[in-house]
Amino acid sequence: MKDYKADPIVLSTRIRLARNLKDYPFPARLSPAEKAQVNDEVAAVLLEDGSLRRIDMESLSDSEAVSLAEKHLISPEFASDAEGRTLLLSQDETVSIMLCEEDHIRIQVIEPGLSLDEAYGKADALDDRLARRLPVAFDEKLGYLTQCPTNLGTALRASVMLHLPALSRAGLMGRLSSTIAKLGLTLRGTYGEGTKPIGELFQLSNQVTLGISEQVAIQNLAAIARQIMAQETEAREALRQDNVFIDKIYRARGILGSAYMLSCSECTDLLSLVRLGAALGLLDVPLEKLDRLLTEIQPATINVAAGQPCAPAQRDVIRAQKVKDALQER
Amino acid sequence: MKDYKADPIVLSTRIRLARNLKDYPFPARLSPAEKAQVNDEVAAVLLEDGSLRRIDMESLSDSEAVSLAEKHLISPEFASDAEGRTLLLSQDETVSIMLCEEDHIRIQVIEPGLSLDEAYGKADALDDRLARRLPVAFDEKLGYLTQCPTNLGTALRASVMLHLPALSRAGLMGRLSSTIAKLGLTLRGTYGEGTKPIGELFQLSNQVTLGISEQVAIQNLAAIARQIMAQETEAREALRQDNVFIDKIYRARGILGSAYMLSCSECTDLLSLVRLGAALGLLDVPLEKLDRLLTEIQPATINVAAGQPCAPAQRDVIRAQKVKDALQER
Repeated sequence: MKDYKADPIVLSTRIRLARNLKDYPFPARLSPAEKAQVNDEVAAVLLEDGSLRRIDMESLSDSEAVSLAEKHLISPEFASDAEGRTLLLSQDETVSIMLCEEDHIRIQVIEPGLSLDEAYGKADALDDRLARRLPVAFDEKLGYLTQCPTNLGTALRASVMLHLPALSRAGLMGRLSSTIAKLGLTLRGTYGEGTKPIGELFQLSNQVTLGISEQVAIQNLAAIARQIMAQETEAREALRQDNVFIDKIYRARGILGSAYMLSCSECTDLLSLVRLGAALGLLDVPLEKLDRLLTEIQPATINVAAGQPCAPAQRDVIRAQKVKDALQER
Repeated sequence: MKDYKADPIVLSTRIRLARNLKDYPFPARLSPAEKAQVNDEVAAVLLEDGSLRRIDMESLSDSEAVSLAEKHLISPEFASDAEGRTLLLSQDETVSIMLCEEDHIRIQVIEPGLSLDEAYGKADALDDRLARRLPVAFDEKLGYLTQCPTNLGTALRASVMLHLPALSRAGLMGRLSSTIAKLGLTLRGTYGEGTKPIGELFQLSNQVTLGISEQVAIQNLAAIARQIMAQETEAREALRQDNVFIDKIYRARGILGSAYMLSCSECTDLLSLVRLGAALGLLDVPLEKLDRLLTEIQPATINVAAGQPCAPAQRDVIRAQKVKDALQER
């Protein structure tokens, strides 16, 4: 994810496939020894080509685990309970595979921008490698079997992370969310179900997994994403006429370049404004840098970079310095 | 006033001498023709050496007149009613002489920093030139005669403009003002009597003009000013430990360097914070530049620079650009 051209609206695309091994109960009902067996069996297959490294979650500090969730590489639940859990992670962090989360295997591929086909292709290839070597729980009628019935069928969750500051500010998110719900998709906060949007970032994802093919699910999502992107683009153009808003954008850049302390939530809000300003061509800041910062300013990720857990006030100072430095470098 | 070293606390020193010609009633009771006569008689004497130029106030636009008041070169009253009034102004704007204000002649000398002796010396020299050539109203018992009895005696008003952000923030101004009142001095807002302090700037001036010599009045003022300066310096040192405050200072610099619109009052507050930051060595901005900006961002002064009266919203944009440019240039 180092060299890429960021999209003005879509930060990233994520594909997640849930799989379970036929011969074991779901993780919730596994003994520690059985979990270890599942982890080892899957790891043996997927580590073969050397592209992934194995991380035993119990070997990580709290900050290291939470930082992975902040980067959207694992679920918050996976971070909060390490017992018997293993992560397989690619060097560039685009592929992360959670073992013994809710299901035995959760393959996740995350790509910058709107890249549903690329991300699905990668995930599908991993799934093929797995299926060739291990007996995966599959039912002719129900499709892939998963612990939570909402995942039955394709067991595919595809999502795109959208930056929608203009639609948010225009107060259009409520209406948009309910329209989207009627289409069998969902639009929700940054860190998934039940979370609030941070920095005006929203996750658009499919809900329907039963009675639908992976391809159709992805096509639907891409089509709806493109419609939302068009609406956001239109709303952004309207903001160009709003001097009060333009002032806000310029000030956000000024504060990020000067503050001595920044809380995570203020910093995220300011980065969101600056990202919009950069997308509109008002500010000369690379979107890639802003997207990287949106992750790097998260509390646990700062702790990891600092090499130790920091007090919140100390973190606010480190965060401000980090942002200042990043915005200064060319 | 171009080449000077600004003081961290004292922006400027002002000496004002009120004088009246013996042979005329006070201006309030003069006919237009008599006012013209007074103006001409005084101008004839004071323009002789070529250091001053004559400005008939009626020839100025509203903005030009108010801009002179914003620069503290004339009183707001002098700006608001031009009829029969004349200003004699030196090239560097350190000397301004209002004719037919409340008194026939008001000699004002303004110098940067704490310069009571220098300013008084200049004013006194002008007064001498005047007294040698024109009959000034003077009473052995009462001293110089002035329209307002509070000026009788020395008819001298000496004042220093103090930047007291640390004492203000510590909530110490109320107590300080009443202590000072007991000492026969007064501490008030930026534009004199009845005005609110803007940008945490305060005018310290003498009140007593009767039964006291000019020298003693000036010595008293200088002594009190030095005490206040010492208190402000101490209060500023305490602020060095206050990270929330330091954050405010850095942000103020950031906003001034980035905003698209700035109202006069917000701009002044931010300049005040940045001036404090510069005085504390936290920010690398010359105090002289900030002091110049504190005047240049005033509404009428912006109108004059723009060559036309601007709408407030337009002025806010011009102001922000002016500040941004000034802070950028080295």
